[in-house]
Amino acid sequence: DFVHALQEVRPAFGVSEEDLDAAVSGGIIKYSPNIDDILKKGELFIERVRQSSGDRALASLLLHGPAGSGKTALAASIAMQSNFPFVRLISPEGYVGMSEASKITAIQNCFLDAYKSPLSVIVIDSIEIILEWVQIGPRFSNSLLQAVKTLCRKTPPKGCRLLILVTTHERHVLEQMDLISAFDSEIGVPYLQSLKELNKVLDAMQFLDSPEARHRVVQSIEAKTGSTVPSIGIKTLLSGLKTAQYSSDVEEEFVDFMVDHINARRNKYV
Amino acid sequence: DFVHALQEVRPAFGVSEEDLDAAVSGGIIKYSPNIDDILKKGELFIERVRQSSGDRALASLLLHGPAGSGKTALAASIAMQSNFPFVRLISPEGYVGMSEASKITAIQNCFLDAYKSPLSVIVIDSIEIILEWVQIGPRFSNSLLQAVKTLCRKTPPKGCRLLILVTTHERHVLEQMDLISAFDSEIGVPYLQSLKELNKVLDAMQFLDSPEARHRVVQSIEAKTGSTVPSIGIKTLLSGLKTAQYSSDVEEEFVDFMVDHINARRNKYV
Amino acid sequence: DFVHALQEVRPAFGVSEEDLDAAVSGGIIKYSPNIDDILKKGELFIERVRQSSGDRALASLLLHGPAGSGKTALAASIAMQSNFPFVRLISPEGYVGMSEASKITAIQNCFLDAYKSPLSVIVIDSIEIILEWVQIGPRFSNSLLQAVKTLCRKTPPKGCRLLILVTTHERHVLEQMDLISAFDSEIGVPYLQSLKELNKVLDAMQFLDSPEARHRVVQSIEAKTGSTVPSIGIKTLLSGLKTAQYSSDVEEEFVDFMVDHINARRNKYV
Amino acid sequence: DFVHALQEVRPAFGVSEEDLDAAVSGGIIKYSPNIDDILKKGELFIERVRQSSGDRALASLLLHGPAGSGKTALAASIAMQSNFPFVRLISPEGYVGMSEASKITAIQNCFLDAYKSPLSVIVIDSIEIILEWVQIGPRFSNSLLQAVKTLCRKTPPKGCRLLILVTTHERHVLEQMDLISAFDSEIGVPYLQSLKELNKVLDAMQFLDSPEARHRVVQSIEAKTGSTVPSIGIKTLLSGLKTAQYSSDVEEEFVDFMVDHINARRNKYV
Amino acid sequence: DFVHALQEVRPAFGVSEEDLDAAVSGGIIKYSPNIDDILKKGELFIERVRQSSGDRALASLLLHGPAGSGKTALAASIAMQSNFPFVRLISPEGYVGMSEASKITAIQNCFLDAYKSPLSVIVIDSIEIILEWVQIGPRFSNSLLQAVKTLCRKTPPKGCRLLILVTTHERHVLEQMDLISAFDSEIGVPYLQSLKELNKVLDAMQFLDSPEARHRVVQSIEAKTGSTVPSIGIKTLLSGLKTAQYSSDVEEEFVDFMVDHINARRNKYV
Amino acid sequence: DFVHALQEVRPAFGVSEEDLDAAVSGGIIKYSPNIDDILKKGELFIERVRQSSGDRALASLLLHGPAGSGKTALAASIAMQSNFPFVRLISPEGYVGMSEASKITAIQNCFLDAYKSPLSVIVIDSIEIILEWVQIGPRFSNSLLQAVKTLCRKTPPKGCRLLILVTTHERHVLEQMDLISAFDSEIGVPYLQSLKELNKVLDAMQFLDSPEARHRVVQSIEAKTGSTVPSIGIKTLLSGLKTAQYSSDVEEEFVDFMVDHINARRNKYV
Ligand SMILES: Nc1ncnc2c1ncn2[C@@H]1O[C@H](COP(=O)(O)OP(=O)(O)OP(=O)(O)O)[C@@H](O)[C@H]1O
Ligand SMILES: Nc1ncnc2c1ncn2[C@@H]1O[C@H](COP(=O)(O)OP(=O)(O)OP(=O)(O)O)[C@@H](O)[C@H]1O
Ligand SMILES: Nc1ncnc2c1ncn2[C@@H]1O[C@H](COP(=O)(O)OP(=O)(O)OP(=O)(O)O)[C@@H](O)[C@H]1O
Ligand SMILES: Nc1ncnc2c1ncn2[C@@H]1O[C@H](COP(=O)(O)OP(=O)(O)OP(=O)(O)O)[C@@H](O)[C@H]1O
Ligand SMILES: Nc1ncnc2c1ncn2[C@@H]1O[C@H](COP(=O)(O)OP(=O)(O)OP(=O)(O)O)[C@@H](O)[C@H]1O
Ligand SMILES: Nc1ncnc2c1ncn2[C@@H]1O[C@H](COP(=O)(O)OP(=O)(O)OP(=O)(O)O)[C@@H](O)[C@H]1O
Ligand SMILES: [Mg+2]
Ligand SMILES: [Mg+2]
Ligand SMILES: [Mg+2]
Ligand SMILES: [Mg+2]
Ligand SMILES: [Mg+2]
Ligand SMILES: [Mg+2]
Repeated sequence: DFVHALQEVRPAFGVSEEDLDAAVSGGIIKYSPNIDDILKKGELFIERVRQSSGDRALASLLLHGPAGSGKTALAASIAMQSNFPFVRLISPEGYVGMSEASKITAIQNCFLDAYKSPLSVIVIDSIEIILEWVQIGPRFSNSLLQAVKTLCRKTPPKGCRLLILVTTHERHVLEQMDLISAFDSEIGVPYLQSLKELNKVLDAMQFLDSPEARHRVVQSIEAKTGSTVPSIGIKTLLSGLKTAQYSSDVEEEFVDFMVDHINARRNKYV
Repeated sequence: DFVHALQEVRPAFGVSEEDLDAAVSGGIIKYSPNIDDILKKGELFIERVRQSSGDRALASLLLHGPAGSGKTALAASIAMQSNFPFVRLISPEGYVGMSEASKITAIQNCFLDAYKSPLSVIVIDSIEIILEWVQIGPRFSNSLLQAVKTLCRKTPPKGCRLLILVTTHERHVLEQMDLISAFDSEIGVPYLQSLKELNKVLDAMQFLDSPEARHRVVQSIEAKTGSTVPSIGIKTLLSGLKTAQYSSDVEEEFVDFMVDHINARRNKYV
Repeated sequence: DFVHALQEVRPAFGVSEEDLDAAVSGGIIKYSPNIDDILKKGELFIERVRQSSGDRALASLLLHGPAGSGKTALAASIAMQSNFPFVRLISPEGYVGMSEASKITAIQNCFLDAYKSPLSVIVIDSIEIILEWVQIGPRFSNSLLQAVKTLCRKTPPKGCRLLILVTTHERHVLEQMDLISAFDSEIGVPYLQSLKELNKVLDAMQFLDSPEARHRVVQSIEAKTGSTVPSIGIKTLLSGLKTAQYSSDVEEEFVDFMVDHINARRNKYV
Repeated sequence: DFVHALQEVRPAFGVSEEDLDAAVSGGIIKYSPNIDDILKKGELFIERVRQSSGDRALASLLLHGPAGSGKTALAASIAMQSNFPFVRLISPEGYVGMSEASKITAIQNCFLDAYKSPLSVIVIDSIEIILEWVQIGPRFSNSLLQAVKTLCRKTPPKGCRLLILVTTHERHVLEQMDLISAFDSEIGVPYLQSLKELNKVLDAMQFLDSPEARHRVVQSIEAKTGSTVPSIGIKTLLSGLKTAQYSSDVEEEFVDFMVDHINARRNKYV
Repeated sequence: DFVHALQEVRPAFGVSEEDLDAAVSGGIIKYSPNIDDILKKGELFIERVRQSSGDRALASLLLHGPAGSGKTALAASIAMQSNFPFVRLISPEGYVGMSEASKITAIQNCFLDAYKSPLSVIVIDSIEIILEWVQIGPRFSNSLLQAVKTLCRKTPPKGCRLLILVTTHERHVLEQMDLISAFDSEIGVPYLQSLKELNKVLDAMQFLDSPEARHRVVQSIEAKTGSTVPSIGIKTLLSGLKTAQYSSDVEEEFVDFMVDHINARRNKYV
Repeated sequence: DFVHALQEVRPAFGVSEEDLDAAVSGGIIKYSPNIDDILKKGELFIERVRQSSGDRALASLLLHGPAGSGKTALAASIAMQSNFPFVRLISPEGYVGMSEASKITAIQNCFLDAYKSPLSVIVIDSIEIILEWVQIGPRFSNSLLQAVKTLCRKTPPKGCRLLILVTTHERHVLEQMDLISAFDSEIGVPYLQSLKELNKVLDAMQFLDSPEARHRVVQSIEAKTGSTVPSIGIKTLLSGLKTAQYSSDVEEEFVDFMVDHINARRNKYV
């Protein structure tokens, strides 16, 4: 059934960091070749760090994309597949309510710990939230920015090779912060781009009783919106599926959810 | 009589949280199908959280609408009908005069308490006031924003399923704060939209001596304003009723109140 | 004589709060029907609070008008005529040189005291000055604003009914602060609007030796300005009268004062 | 001779407050009827305060005018001629290097002392500098503004009558600070407005050897600038005289000084 | 092979300051006459300081250029070739997470130490990051700016001759900070300006198996972009080379990297 | 030779304040009549203060001009030639890394010390840097501004006559700070204004072997730039001379320096 399917898609990891684990708790559904490209780029950087000559090395990769497109899960997935002895997640959820100074200390300590391991991965998740960014003003913590920027540029000490994976859904903000040039490379994590991809996700989740029912749902969405682009992120989609299943009319509830979503986005940008 | 009627409309709740209780002290008058839709959406989210697979889950719902439209009462009503063992209200009134840091600690403690219960509802009322928002500047507490944003995004620990209900009358501000994407769904709480709805409220409150008198009042308002849209929230309306009843000419006082109100709104937006 | 007349107009109050007392030390001259309307609205709200059902109630009324129009004296007058056991004035003069935090504590304590009385009136005078508002910037204390806003919205505890009277000469600022919707109702306190009203004030003050002399003065002002609108507040007018009486030529000095005043206002707005 | 003349113009005061004394150390030269008007207005307010009925009273007068026009000397002169038992000067020079909080305490203490005397005058000199105003930003101390504004509005306690004299050369700033309405009246202190007035000052100072020489100088200035308006304040003028007298060619040096001054002003505003 | 080549290009320095050492760990490839000019200008300043008459002297040189153009390596190289007894690097990486005050103390101490040596070089690397500059706002630490500006202008005490080398990729910011006039001279560090220069770098790094393969790669880039200007800095280029070598198809990966890079820049500025 | 010439131009001063001494260590070359005018104006003010009647006096003079035009050396020179018993330099270099509060205390102490001497000169060098001015924002220390402004306006106590010399290359900033009116007079320190003046400086420095060589250099500059205005300050020029002399081709290096300089300025303003 639906719930069971959700469980199965989820991969088993060799390393048991709880937070990273939770980040990919929904599994990675391969609904598009983009997903493979992202995972491959991650592996290339892991190889660069692992095999780099000399006994110190630094490489960094930025994953950017709209809200709910799957950035955190993909970064966590890459990090855990490295099998590096030191894998750590720096995320806003880990620092709720801490002062600027305490956050800086905590982040710095995470790097100092990484420096003690021959091979390390640090995931900095939702970096713009860690920097307390908000577009009103705009405001953010400049101390945190300076600390993070410098740590991302700093060559590790001898004996340590470090890969930094960073996620954000505010790439243009990082550009204004002159943070982009701190990373060796970057890659985009897009929304679902076709109803075919939507259908793949519904299939993977075993949503509704049959492939026919799922196909009917997709056709119904297309008919009602006149659009073939779902413009939705995998995270938001999975949440919509979860809510819909408790409705009295699951199919209608989910179609409504998608139609509202597509129309809202359309009004926003047109 | 009038006062007695006010008492009767008010539902009895199984749970006795005083603050939530006070928030619905005026009862819920079903003057429009919107009210049912809002309550139904609340129930759907309660089901999603209650039945979600795995032993941890998070869902969140935003209620937005103009000042005095009934948001707090509706959110409180949904929360109390859940019958979840942990139901708590986070509201500006609970934090008067506290420093930013103390507020953050208090809010965080509320979440930590919720995390100890298998099923919890937290109502964050008037979130823009909690964040100390004011359009002049604009100003707000970024520390509070970051703390609240992150708590709303944070998956509860194992053993806890949590529903977050949030109210605001500044939806566009939350958008600028990039808070909207933190919620799974949202729903609007509108003003009274017709004189028929106004009549329903007057009937429910048993205002004046007879249905004829109430109808006369409504017609009088239409005649004097040439409008069939009262453009008033249920909270403001109930306050106008309360003041009018102590006047020497109750009917005239209330009609004046509504006419002034409708004209003021018209001047504002035309 | 002049000074004696000033004394007589002043009403005797049953309650002896010194500050409120001082606020109406110039008495209330009924130079216009507006004054009666304002006092009547005040009484209506006193009745609403006194008779409200249940054992807790909150109502609030805003008096707004230009500088020196008599707001403080009118609010103080309403408060003292309530004969409520708890009547208190929160005014900038009471908090000179205190820090933000101390002011917040003091204001909060005033409300906590009110909550202990079955019937209370709190006058918040010149609320924009209490909030340290200044249009340059603009600047104000957001902590004070948040505390005052929330206290004005907070239902008193069981056993307490509270009326809040607020004065301001910056109504548009309160609107930008989203403070207006915190009040149940509002009423304007205007300037003197005709030379007839001016004559009434001169008569009440027994200014100069005879009614003829006073009439001569008013005609002289009209002749020199070509205007029938004095555009002056009662407070400013009484101050002008006070200074003029020590001049060698009282009549000329006062006419000059009014002419300068009317011309200055004209230049400002034309 | 010149230096001696400077000494003689200076009046002898009955009260020996050193600071106020120093402020009029250059004496008051009556080069224009404006000077008499200002001094007369000051006396009128002294009478109002001295004779005001009841045992408490407050009155305030603002002297405003361009830099170096003589405001401080005139306010000090009015204050000292009152012969009130308490006469005090609040000036920026008295508070150099003090923190905001210390300044507020010092100013408040000055008022508290005044409240202990039956008749008091407080001179607040260069109020915009006391408030730490600077047009860049603009910036100023809002705490100081709020304290000073409220002290200027606060009725003294029983047994005290208080006159407040305030000087500024930034009247428009006080308007933006909503400080103007805090004063009962205001009067301007202008620049020298004709070469005749300039001649009067030169005569009073016995500048150069003879009336003919002084006249020659004035004519020379008119010839070289084509202007009959010196556009200079008495303070600036006296400083120019002082420097010129140590030149090898006194007459030429002073003419140059005036010509440069008039041309500089012209370029500024044309 | 590739990795070995990287090692060989790196010069051996007489002085063993670890940080400066690390800064030139990639060696200096002479891919353009610009590189020689920069090194020569550095030597000229070293001579000026070494030979300056009197026993105190100060000279300063600014190296500016786009991100990753090789500024840090060149400044470090000049500093180490001076063979001065005191050579020190002030860089953001050395001050991560320190407070403004601590940074100022640390920088000042570095200068105080330099003052004790007869001949000193201080490299201030990425000065805009040290000053915590970010264009959003813009924000920066004014205390740090004032301290650094004054230290760069301050003549050393007797017995000390000091050369200051400064790098930045935000020259226009230094101009707005009025820092440019603090330096005696400045020189630009540009991007690679032709495919010939790119070829030189590939040759120096012994990238791919043969000169023919490298030439093929360069031609392929020109064909795919239609451009002969690589618009890339040496640092960014070396990073691209490092990543590409771990790909399954090294040649394709590197060509893709360059094509993406050139197109991205083109879109940015056209 | 060159170095020796530099030494000889430097005058010997009677007073040995080290800092002031260092400020004129390059000597004063009289390359233009402006230099004499400035020194003469300084002497006039020294006379005014020395001979002023009464036992207290204050006078102040502002020297303003572009970066490197020689302001500090000229102010120091005037101060030292006064032969007053108290001569002190307040400069940014003396306060590196101090907090706002410490700087204010230090500056105030300098004035308090001056007040103890019958005749004093205080040089406030680069006043805009002392005030921590930076055009980005703009930002500056308002506390420092208020302290310095008030100290510059404050009459010294009995027994003290004080001359204040102030330098700035941001005159327009002082105007916005309302600081100009605090000074009795001001004078500009310009750039070199003709190639003849440049030739005079080269002669005074005995640059190159012969007058012919120097003349050739000047002609070469004119030929290459087509300009007869060097647009350079004496300080910048002397630095250029110093660097050039260590080049292999001194003449070419210096001509290049001047040509670059003139072209850079031209591009800036055209
Ligand atoms: N192909 C996929 N890529 C990413 N996530 C996937 C994929 N398939 C399934 N998922 C699931 O979708 C969810 C993606 O959520 P995730 O938090 O990673 O999104 P996000 O882009 O980081 O969101 P946000 O912008 O809010 O930070 C996860 O629960 C993950 O397990
Ligand atoms: N259908 C209804 N929906 C909501 N409130 C109702 C309804 N019927 C009656 N009420 C009463 O109306 C009042 C609504 O006030 P409430 O404080 O909830 O409004 P609000 O929108 O939260 O106001 P604010 O914008 O000031 O926060 C409550 O007293 C509630 O008991
Ligand atoms: N009808 C009246 N209404 C109000 N005040 C009156 C009236 N008649 C006489 N007065 C006297 O006029 C004065 C009004 O001053 P008050 O301080 O109330 O004005 P205000 O509007 O509060 O001024 P501000 O804008 O400066 O706060 C008081 O002294 C009061 O006694
Ligand atoms: N008629 C006059 N009015 C004012 N001051 C006069 C007059 N005649 C002579 N003086 C002298 O001129 C000087 C005026 O200086 P004062 O400090 O009062 O000017 P100011 O307007 O306060 O200057 P600032 O704008 O700098 O504060 C004093 O020394 C005073 O003694
Ligand atoms: N000719 C060269 N000039 C400079 N660096 C070179 C040169 N040849 C090879 N390199 C190597 O290239 C890299 C240049 O990186 P460097 O950190 O100096 O660049 P940068 O301009 O300071 O970067 P950023 O703008 O990020 O501070 C170094 O590893 C250096 O060893
Ligand atoms: N005629 C002159 N006037 C001023 N300085 C001269 C003159 N002749 C030679 N010098 C020398 O030129 C240098 C001028 O430098 P100075 O520091 O005074 O310039 P500045 O205008 O204060 O610079 P900055 O704008 O950077 O503060 C000093 O070394 C001084 O000895
Ligand atoms: Mg994420
Ligand atoms: Mg509410
Ligand atoms: Mg008032
Ligand atoms: Mg003055
Ligand atoms: Mg660098
Ligand atoms: Mg200087």
